[in-house]
Amino acid sequence: MGEFELIQRYFTRPSPRAVLGVGDDCAIVQAAPGMQLAISTDMLVAGRHFFPDVDPQALGHKALAVNLSDLAACGARPLAFTLALALPQADAAWLEPFAAGLWALADAHGCELIGGDTTRGPLNLCITVFGEVPGDSHAATRTRALLRSGARAGDDVYVSGSLGEAALGLQHLLGKLHLNAPVAAACRARLERPTPRVALGLALRGVASACADVSDGLLGDLGHILERSGVGARLDTDAVLACCPWSAHAIDAPVLRQCVLSGGDDYELVFTAAPAHAAAVAAAAQASGTPVRRIGRIETQTGLHLVDAHGQEVTSSGQGFDHFASASAHTAEALQ
Amino acid sequence: MGEFELIQRYFTRPSPRAVLGVGDDCAIVQAAPGMQLAISTDMLVAGRHFFPDVDPQALGHKALAVNLSDLAACGARPLAFTLALALPQADAAWLEPFAAGLWALADAHGCELIGGDTTRGPLNLCITVFGEVPGDSHAATRTRALLRSGARAGDDVYVSGSLGEAALGLQHLLGKLHLNAPVAAACRARLERPTPRVALGLALRGVASACADVSDGLLGDLGHILERSGVGARLDTDAVLACCPWSAHAIDAPVLRQCVLSGGDDYELVFTAAPAHAAAVAAAAQASGTPVRRIGRIETQTGLHLVDAHGQEVTSSGQGFDHFASASAHTAEALQ
Repeated sequence: MGEFELIQRYFTRPSPRAVLGVGDDCAIVQAAPGMQLAISTDMLVAGRHFFPDVDPQALGHKALAVNLSDLAACGARPLAFTLALALPQADAAWLEPFAAGLWALADAHGCELIGGDTTRGPLNLCITVFGEVPGDSHAATRTRALLRSGARAGDDVYVSGSLGEAALGLQHLLGKLHLNAPVAAACRARLERPTPRVALGLALRGVASACADVSDGLLGDLGHILERSGVGARLDTDAVLACCPWSAHAIDAPVLRQCVLSGGDDYELVFTAAPAHAAAVAAAAQASGTPVRRIGRIETQTGLHLVDAHGQEVTSSGQGFDHFASASAHTAEALQ
Repeated sequence: MGEFELIQRYFTRPSPRAVLGVGDDCAIVQAAPGMQLAISTDMLVAGRHFFPDVDPQALGHKALAVNLSDLAACGARPLAFTLALALPQADAAWLEPFAAGLWALADAHGCELIGGDTTRGPLNLCITVFGEVPGDSHAATRTRALLRSGARAGDDVYVSGSLGEAALGLQHLLGKLHLNAPVAAACRARLERPTPRVALGLALRGVASACADVSDGLLGDLGHILERSGVGARLDTDAVLACCPWSAHAIDAPVLRQCVLSGGDDYELVFTAAPAHAAAVAAAAQASGTPVRRIGRIETQTGLHLVDAHGQEVTSSGQGFDHFASASAHTAEALQ
């Protein structure tokens, strides 16, 4: 199977929302009037971000999901994506389920594949995703996208869904932790098929003051919000740990804590909102069908503090994941 | 050096043309009123698209150049790009010249780095580039981009600059061909530091009927134009061979021919234009400071025919490059 046949067979479909899709030197897109284009790119490397023998259908899902999660964090509506793919060989038995997983998630979000590149090489997937956010078409410096920089002292800190499951699933797969079968299955599903919180991100436009997705771990990703907003935060440790549905399942406490606080690969949204918007946050959670939990408060004083039920500070055991420097439960580190 | 320090040190600069650049979950761009966004992505793999020990400054240049070449082929003005980078290690001695080569070309074209991703892994560079082309903002199906699909019977076929030098340089580096020192240096420079024909592409808007960049070899890339336009072409072999400035330098004739017709990595533009536009083509060439040569004519009958000075058909010895099926002088195949 040649490169052009491969593209034709697996990665070419009509893309009516784009001006021009796959097949020319460039794709062409046009944001609707009054809309700006949000862009994010993520590269997934075999043996680092995923096991080389991972189910290709799950991998197709995850490669797009981690990119859609960045759009969700900005409150952008998915529009299109490009896919660059380095493959050791053109293997139909791998490409078919990979494409199926990719298309299923793309179709669920109306996100069109508009271009890409395929080449031989060590397995590597690079997706660049495009979404629309409202923005003043005459003043390009104004946007209604959710940014990391808008958190203000007094804002509540929230996180969506659950934390730590992907990291627990990974530790189980690596044989470093034993989970019973139903818990292991649930955690593995979260690791391999994360759910990008696109609907929640859209519902939070105009409600959240700042937002990021939890890809490198709660502490690290909230840390980016704090840094760019020039503020600090105090988190209720019990509320954070309660974000893991398996916290009462006799999992070793330090491991659980590490996975929840710094495990990464959660693809939830961590966001802030003024207390006056608490009802609007609840409404956004309900409208998008996404659980949301308040875990702390933004403070003027910089730094990230974890406190117990009595307000006493608890020492943190980990930060977010850094692809070149960290040692966490994050997939990319654990698979090295 | 950590991931965030690496990004901060080498890949973060102001990006005033973008609404939002490096540092959030997404970048945000907005095309000017009446403009559409042209998008292209290319992935370069060590040991396939370049020698692993290639000068990193040249590699930084080439990684962006091959993407700008796609914008040129569409007549798009460069605006911004994202960079995803898998690196075996964070090595300042490599990153510094790589970034210098990348920024020099980016600055020359006013193309801003607005986002990306870095991770550990086998060396792999994936750039997605964004450019502006005029397009009716109210009818998204109309664009003034140069497309592959517009060639009509009777149009002249042109190619810019020179062909075959990159492939000759590669064969020389591989020890499969001996070039004398000045020729080898010229050919190697073309292989390692290609010049994207951005100014020519812009000048050809409204003049050329179809356009593609020569990345996989003249025959293959012209073949894409013919296929998407539903036409054929007759090429003057002598005119094509004259596109190589070293054709009289005692290079083995079949090798020269193979490199010129199918070598690839040229990053020239192959385009078509109605004979009535011949003067406009010459003016575009002059205005952009880019040599352009007429090499043939589009025909109603499909197929690509090479003819000699007497109009006799000459057998072709190669087609364009296919990353999974071909055997040509193209870098990606030769380095395998």
